Amino acid sequence: MSNAEVNLLNNVRIVLVNPQHPGNIGMAARAMKNMGLSQLYLVNPKDFPSKEALYRASRADDVVEAAIIKNSLKEAVSDCSLVLGTSTRERIMSQTILNPREAALKITTVFQQEKTAIVFGCETFGLVNEDLELCQFQITIPSIKRYSSLNLASAVQVICYELRMSCLEKEIQSEKISRTTPLASAAELDGFYNHLKQTMIHIDFLNPECPRKMMERFRQIFNRALLDQEDVNLLRGMLSAIEKNR
Amino acid sequence: MSNAEVNLLNNVRIVLVNPQHPGNIGMAARAMKNMGLSQLYLVNPKDFPSKEALYRASRADDVVEAAIIKNSLKEAVSDCSLVLGTSTRERIMSQTILNPREAALKITTVFQQEKTAIVFGCETFGLVNEDLELCQFQITIPSIKRYSSLNLASAVQVICYELRMSCLEKEIQSEKISRTTPLASAAELDGFYNHLKQTMIHIDFLNPECPRKMMERFRQIFNRALLDQEDVNLLRGMLSAIEKNR
Repeated sequence: MSNAEVNLLNNVRIVLVNPQHPGNIGMAARAMKNMGLSQLYLVNPKDFPSKEALYRASRADDVVEAAIIKNSLKEAVSDCSLVLGTSTRERIMSQTILNPREAALKITTVFQQEKTAIVFGCETFGLVNEDLELCQFQITIPSIKRYSSLNLASAVQVICYELRMSCLEKEIQSEKISRTTPLASAAELDGFYNHLKQTMIHIDFLNPECPRKMMERFRQIFNRALLDQEDVNLLRGMLSAIEKNR
Repeated sequence: MSNAEVNLLNNVRIVLVNPQHPGNIGMAARAMKNMGLSQLYLVNPKDFPSKEALYRASRADDVVEAAIIKNSLKEAVSDCSLVLGTSTRERIMSQTILNPREAALKITTVFQQEKTAIVFGCETFGLVNEDLELCQFQITIPSIKRYSSLNLASAVQVICYELRMSCLEKEIQSEKISRTTPLASAAELDGFYNHLKQTMIHIDFLNPECPRKMMERFRQIFNRALLDQEDVNLLRGMLSAIEKNR
């Protein structure tokens, strides 16, 4: 595990305030564990401990069983340096509103060494103002206006996903293509295109008088594919088989 | 609504293959609607129509009721130019693996005008190889290795969230790959791959007893190239010329 992942596991807690349905507690625990979080705090859960919560947790029952129960949000976040409250409502309180990605960036960079709480309100009406006052930032998941309320566990999933993405970001390159074989060199590509051209002429598909346009189309296709050495070997093998079969 | 949001609503479908629990169908519909998607396709759902699905959908029952049922994944994606399959397993097939953000970027920029399908396998074992073969790209949600399997609706939530984030970002920046020709549909690609296979068998390049591995390599190359209709015409023209010349 990277340092960021260890910090995520140890320093970031998910706090559910007054969860009404134990199934949501279980599903939130599963969402957390999938993304490498483990610390679940429950403030006055309506129905807990609960078999339904364990069932819905799938194999994240360890997270459910280790959940810490508190009587108030204040108690649940008292040792945290950073407290963020999720809300679909726009700016009820005065905090800066972050989207999940901005929040994750803040948590995993600025506050890496600090205990952090991400707070979710109850299913029916979210966080009340008194709870939001304990939060330094508000997180709003950018749902559509006419239908903005996510399922509680789904909201936890989105936030935990962004936290994990933020942790992994250094390792993730944009559109990574995992390859074990080196990409073909310019000389290898040139060899392939010459071979392709000769074969296309031999099977009368390419007019040797004006080969340019078709070869350009072929280049466009294969250049987009970013051929590696094995790809070139396969394609040249095919060309040889075509020649042999004439 | 911005253009990107309209495209998301009209052009991007979520396909659930063999969903076992109707509750997950309902929750997936809710996740979709929260993020501005509406097109739900179900391939051989185990228990549908279902009251449980409607109940779990909350107020996204319109999405559930408009769901289109198909007998095979092939039918569900035949008119799509871009088909992406979600899988937690690493590189079973040959596709490029994208994380949800990369996939969303691809869908909302390159494929703005094209029909796109995002495919999710059943709860217990995900997508089978036969289904993954119909996908040009694989999406993997970066969960932790020891506990990688997300709840089905949670996985849908993460992907739909990234699509919406991508749409909202598009209003700020636009990165377009200009194409004048429409991309090849799944059916057109399928026709090309079948033609390629037959031709490779005819010229003794492919052993018809075990065609799988080599065809996978070919798919890997051409899927990366994102073929448009003219590309497919050119390549099939080449295959016909090969056949004629034998």
